[in-house]
Amino acid sequence: MNTIETVLNALESSEFNSSELLDACLDRARSPVGEGSRVFTRLLEDAARAEADAVDRRRRAGISVGPLGGIPISVKDLFDIQGLPTTAGSAVLSDAAPAVRDAVAIARLRAAGAVIVGRTNMTEFAFSGLGLNPHYGTPANPYDRQARRIPGGSSSGAAISVTDGMAVGAVGTDTGGSVRIPAALCGLVGFKPTARRIPQAGTLPLSTSLDSIGSLGPSVRCCGIIDSVLSGDSEPFSRAADVKGLRIAIPKTQVLEDMDVDVAFAFERAVKRLAKAGARIVEIAVPEFAEVGDTAKTATFPAAEAFAWHREMLAQTIERYDPLVAVRISRGAAISAADYIWLLKKRVELIRAVRMRAEGFDALAMPTVPIIAPTIAEFDGDADHYHNSNLLILRNPALVNFLDGCALSIPCHLFGQAPVGLMLARFDSADRALLAIGEAIEKELSTVLS
Amino acid sequence: MNTIETVLNALESSEFNSSELLDACLDRARSPVGEGSRVFTRLLEDAARAEADAVDRRRRAGISVGPLGGIPISVKDLFDIQGLPTTAGSAVLSDAAPAVRDAVAIARLRAAGAVIVGRTNMTEFAFSGLGLNPHYGTPANPYDRQARRIPGGSSSGAAISVTDGMAVGAVGTDTGGSVRIPAALCGLVGFKPTARRIPQAGTLPLSTSLDSIGSLGPSVRCCGIIDSVLSGDSEPFSRAADVKGLRIAIPKTQVLEDMDVDVAFAFERAVKRLAKAGARIVEIAVPEFAEVGDTAKTATFPAAEAFAWHREMLAQTIERYDPLVAVRISRGAAISAADYIWLLKKRVELIRAVRMRAEGFDALAMPTVPIIAPTIAEFDGDADHYHNSNLLILRNPALVNFLDGCALSIPCHLFGQAPVGLMLARFDSADRALLAIGEAIEKELSTVLS
Repeated sequence: MNTIETVLNALESSEFNSSELLDACLDRARSPVGEGSRVFTRLLEDAARAEADAVDRRRRAGISVGPLGGIPISVKDLFDIQGLPTTAGSAVLSDAAPAVRDAVAIARLRAAGAVIVGRTNMTEFAFSGLGLNPHYGTPANPYDRQARRIPGGSSSGAAISVTDGMAVGAVGTDTGGSVRIPAALCGLVGFKPTARRIPQAGTLPLSTSLDSIGSLGPSVRCCGIIDSVLSGDSEPFSRAADVKGLRIAIPKTQVLEDMDVDVAFAFERAVKRLAKAGARIVEIAVPEFAEVGDTAKTATFPAAEAFAWHREMLAQTIERYDPLVAVRISRGAAISAADYIWLLKKRVELIRAVRMRAEGFDALAMPTVPIIAPTIAEFDGDADHYHNSNLLILRNPALVNFLDGCALSIPCHLFGQAPVGLMLARFDSADRALLAIGEAIEKELSTVLS
Repeated sequence: MNTIETVLNALESSEFNSSELLDACLDRARSPVGEGSRVFTRLLEDAARAEADAVDRRRRAGISVGPLGGIPISVKDLFDIQGLPTTAGSAVLSDAAPAVRDAVAIARLRAAGAVIVGRTNMTEFAFSGLGLNPHYGTPANPYDRQARRIPGGSSSGAAISVTDGMAVGAVGTDTGGSVRIPAALCGLVGFKPTARRIPQAGTLPLSTSLDSIGSLGPSVRCCGIIDSVLSGDSEPFSRAADVKGLRIAIPKTQVLEDMDVDVAFAFERAVKRLAKAGARIVEIAVPEFAEVGDTAKTATFPAAEAFAWHREMLAQTIERYDPLVAVRISRGAAISAADYIWLLKKRVELIRAVRMRAEGFDALAMPTVPIIAPTIAEFDGDADHYHNSNLLILRNPALVNFLDGCALSIPCHLFGQAPVGLMLARFDSADRALLAIGEAIEKELSTVLS
């Protein structure tokens, strides 16, 4: 995989132009032996060609092309694109009215010169971490592809569009891990910014309290570049961050439970490597993590807020929903206003407590997902396995959404092994600082990997 | 009634000192023939004496005493005062643990040199606009006192503490009119600022979405001075505002319905007087006002949010509540999270629409309350009359809370007649501008009154 920086350099030095690059992406997306038909709900071939051509002309004329000038980017199927229906991986919205304007995220990508290749497949309405989709098919994880493992979700197509060279970077959303889970399971970097960092106008919501707009790419810097464009925060993040002297907290509460051997091996190895490089590693108790889990017995934001959004459509055409998603949304019907208000208040308390606990550390580190990607087939007709695996996979990343943090998932497996993500989280809205730290850690871990 | 300015001048010129002034207030509060025993849930005699004495010493020594230096102020029974239980006019909280620190509002009053005379009586938990209280008694309206009319609420004691000379100004809270209603019914000025203007830490909540901290006094300037202290916004508001050229909108939707003859007469007279003085009066339709009313069929913020707060205590000791209040809070049990979330969203839409409609006007004007104060006795054992009158009295002021505005109620009745309030509202957080306009209008109307 090429990073955005590598590709920008090649474009600048006329090694190839953006139209040629786009052709290569589209060829892979359309290849009948590839995953393209399951990666995209819609390719935007004509518009993308026009964008690539415009950037090529500007570049030739010596006009500035923006920080993503000519870079093929894929976008999740829940961002409004003027003139197209926003389907969010569903069948029920396939005949929705076309969007009247671009989502803020789309408008900012376009303004930065991005070439928007297509709309990527996802868990229907983003409401699961596995990435299965009964309407458009489920793209397979690049690892051990013949086994057809899950890509992770909900931004499933986003991840495979990058691993399979159909885009250089991808934009998704993350409500409980929907960017970080596919990144971790597919060997990419995934960045979930602090929620309020990027305006969500024009983005189909799952859970308005928890939704955030994130990025996936081959490197921390790729995510950092996309995040700059999406957030409008153009402050560069330092390349100078050093692992030596970093204060990394490992929460002992809950997040290390139920790791499979691959994840345990990779995570412990990564932590040892960071300690050896001079990071100060401190194990801490974070009892609030268990409390966050306990709140789900009373109410959850996604169920309450998604049900509020879907209520009428569910009542009219529940049969057009993925039944596994419909049942999760419908749970919101039983949540009372008092429980929801209690949850809002409890969240504020827990955020305050975790902020104090995280103070003085550069990041909290944990495995993004405690297991490697299972196969798609093993969920066939097994709803219990689906729901249990989903809860396990969402467990760690969802803590960061609930606690209003930002987080990076960085690959920490050995080359050729099943992908494992190391999650670094902060709770003080220091998104750029987290990216800088993440890049230092990525560099340290990649020396191990190679 | 003396205004804060008059009293400050008298204190500065040593006409009397703060301790003497406080004595006069306390004498009236303790008089067996007065309303004091029903105005205060607790007098703070010792603390107030110490405060008054300290201000007197500072003043004698030539040290600055703050913008409320030595002014007796009463505070509603729902603000935390260190060392005392916060009872909010209830019996059930009379044995609550003492507050560990002052509410922000109390701390700011103290820092500004205010002498806090006592905690004022209120509708239990602030959940009604009539001002009746079965635990501490209901203080009677100063108008036609032998008839014992309602003071209005929920800040009932606040109003009577000022009309009866037990304090120069009063601090209350306003969730649906709880400052403006008693002001209007008792012939005072009441100011409800934009909710976020004053921090509510340490204030017992009724409805966290709608609560605001407001002031009552004999004049607009009194409210403006108290508001400066509470908000920390010390920008003076102009005395230069002129009625001539003011653009005043009169909403035709809903707010002029069901006026009794006294209110209709006073309101029409005030509007004519303003027009004659050169204000431009424009009648406008505000269909959103009717939509706000319609939302109550699905859910209301006070019911949902108060039930979330009271749920456990209600389950344990509902028999210690005022039954009329308990039934209103308990309605929140039936509200679903989806309906509450719908209400939050609907509110944002209606706020946006009304802001656009109000643009270009200096204020929207309407009667604060469409009827004059009924007698306390007529509600004895008549729950239907209680609930119907309560809805009617809250109807106009509650619109401003729902629509996130600020509003002033200014007396507009003829001297000696039943008090009637003219409400001026804005929806653009221009609180100080509203005070300036209000002062110009007050001046114009008072020439009529005298």
